[in-house]
Parts: sequence; C-alpha cells; structure tokens
Amino acid sequence: MSYYAPSIEKLIESFERLPSIGHKTAVRLAFHMLDLSKEETEEFINSIKEAKEKLKYCSTCFNITDVDPCPICSSPKRDQSIICVVEDVRDIMAMERTHEYKGVYHVLHGTISPMNGIGPDDIKIKELLARLQNNEIKEVIIATNPRVEGEATSIYLSKLIKPLGIKVTRIAHGIPVGGDLEYTDEITLMKAMEGRREI
Amino acid sequence: MSYYAPSIEKLIESFERLPSIGHKTAVRLAFHMLDLSKEETEEFINSIKEAKEKLKYCSTCFNITDVDPCPICSSPKRDQSIICVVEDVRDIMAMERTHEYKGVYHVLHGTISPMNGIGPDDIKIKELLARLQNNEIKEVIIATNPRVEGEATSIYLSKLIKPLGIKVTRIAHGIPVGGDLEYTDEITLMKAMEGRREI
Repeated sequence: MSYYAPSIEKLIESFERLPSIGHKTAVRLAFHMLDLSKEETEEFINSIKEAKEKLKYCSTCFNITDVDPCPICSSPKRDQSIICVVEDVRDIMAMERTHEYKGVYHVLHGTISPMNGIGPDDIKIKELLARLQNNEIKEVIIATNPRVEGEATSIYLSKLIKPLGIKVTRIAHGIPVGGDLEYTDEITLMKAMEGRREI
Repeated sequence: MSYYAPSIEKLIESFERLPSIGHKTAVRLAFHMLDLSKEETEEFINSIKEAKEKLKYCSTCFNITDVDPCPICSSPKRDQSIICVVEDVRDIMAMERTHEYKGVYHVLHGTISPMNGIGPDDIKIKELLARLQNNEIKEVIIATNPRVEGEATSIYLSKLIKPLGIKVTRIAHGIPVGGDLEYTDEITLMKAMEGRREI
C-alpha cells in the first residue's frame, strides 16, 4: 500500500529503477527533486537529454564521444601504432588517469561469453581486425579484465592477431600496489609468481 | 582534467549534485542513462516533470499531494478531532506505516531554530492555530523529532495551544524496540525512566 501521492510515488519508482539506488535513497532523491527550483530541474533534465542526443560511438575506436573521431583518435600527440584493447568505455578513463599511456584504444563493448550467448561477432572484433589491416600497427595491448571471459577474449584475440605479424601483449596481473600477500587470493599470487621479473 | 566527452561529464556532474550520490555512483548512473532506450529516458524525465507540475501542498494540513485537500484530510474514515503535528511530509509516511493512527496531520515544514534564523512565523504555526479556532479539535499530538529544535517547538506549541482548552500530548521517548540498554545514550535512558508506566 502506498502512502504517497501518485506522482511522487511514480518519481520514487523511477529513481528506484536506477542501479545502486535503494528505496530510502530513492525517496530522498525524489523529495530533493521537488525542492529544486524550476531552473535547476530544467538543467538536470537537459543534461540527460543532451547526453542522449549528442553522444555517439567513435567510428574508429568505439569510445563514447561528442565528436567523431573522438579526441584521442584525432590527437596528433597519440601514437597511432599502438592499440590498447579494452572491454568498456570506462576502462579508457581508468587508463587515461595513469597519464602514462600515449597510444590509442579500441573498445570491444563486451567480452566473448558463450554462457551468456555472446560470441566474437557480438563485440567489436571485426572492427579491430579491420583497423589492423589498414594501418601500420606495431603492437596490440590486450587490457580486458582478468576474469574468465576477459582471459578467453584475450587468448582468442592473440590467436587472430599474431599471424598478422603484429606484437600482441597482455597487461600484467599480480598483487596490487599497497596489497598484502597474506590476503591475496591463490590465482593472483600464482600470476604474480609467473610474471616475476629480474631486478 | 576530464577524460570524458563534455556531455557525459555534464551528466555526471548533474547526478553528483544530488544528495547521497558520490562520484563513482554518478558515473554509474550516467552510463546507465546512456544505456536506456528512448522510451525509458522519456519515462524517467516525465516522472520528474509530472511530479514538479502536479504536486502541491494540501491547504489544510500542508501534506504534499496531487489533490487539494489531500486524501487524509478528505477521508471520512479519519478522526478530524485529533491532529498530529509533524516536522516534515516524510514523517506522515512513517506514521502511516504503523496503520494505527486514525486522526489527521499538520505539517510544520520545519522547526523553530533561532540558530538558523527560523522563527515561529517561518513555519506553519499560524495555520495550525487557525485550524484549532475553526474546528472541534479535542487533542493535538506533537510528534516533532526529539532533538533540541523539535523539543523547543513542542514546548512553544503547547504553551500556545493549552490556553485554548485543547489537550496537548507529546509522543513518548524511550528505548526503541529491539534496542539495548547497554548501548542506549544517557538522555534516551533518562527519558525512558521518566516515561515509565505501571504494568
């Protein structure tokens, strides 16, 4: 049974459908919306509308962008001969925050996952291979997540790309900086041992 | 420095301005919005617009409502001779969830708080007194929050209302059900002792 007026009930439900928003937060957000001025509400609504209208995928790397090609693909400062392959647009942002990587990206928009019915044709693998044909690519860095699907996708890609005579690398797995050996799971520890380097 | 496209950056900022939403949740919500279909986005936006347009305050009790007077004030099942005074609209919902109270409400929309420059004229006290003049009110239950401002408002109201010959009561303070004596603060425990009843 509902104790709120129907329109606020509907607003609360709208917020509840969003990820990581529970009922109490939804109620707080709905009442916050009612407290906003007309201009503030307009601004909020417009930011959603504008994002939905303007944003598209970069036709080269499938990053999300306002302009095509995206600023990274069109930057003269970026090394176009190195492509870092990631699962998701957000992974680009994580990578960019390091300020270290100067190559370009390719977003797969998923991983191969037979359990969920996602095959190689459902993610941007064809498009990656097309880029490799047309360009002077020296290295492909595979930065999919270190999970079963990410690993499988990584192996699948390396088998496709190596025959083209392009160097294929995988980002290192190991103990995170600030981590603790005692609390590290066995597989990470095994990967850390495998990936050991001379100092 | 920002790594996202300007329109998604703006959308993230919009979400970040909402209460109890941090940066990471704002990013998740913004990307969720981009994943929604055109219809789902319309529905979300309309729920906000509709709530802003339709909702108003009940002219009797100042509850938030689609229709004036609100369903509680206009219900023939509610006892119009008992008024429960609360600080906020959400307090009505909390009270209604008990399914016990059958009287009507009056929302003050705040408490007297000289520290914040809120005096008796800034909240709906005049309107409460007007209701007491015009009706056959038998009891006023003061259910403001048990904090300094709520207590001060409660005392202020009782001094105004008692001379009118109307019974004024205050909701009980004590140990919450399921609470633990050991972890109860001194003031609550003191209130619980003061409010003890014969069994």
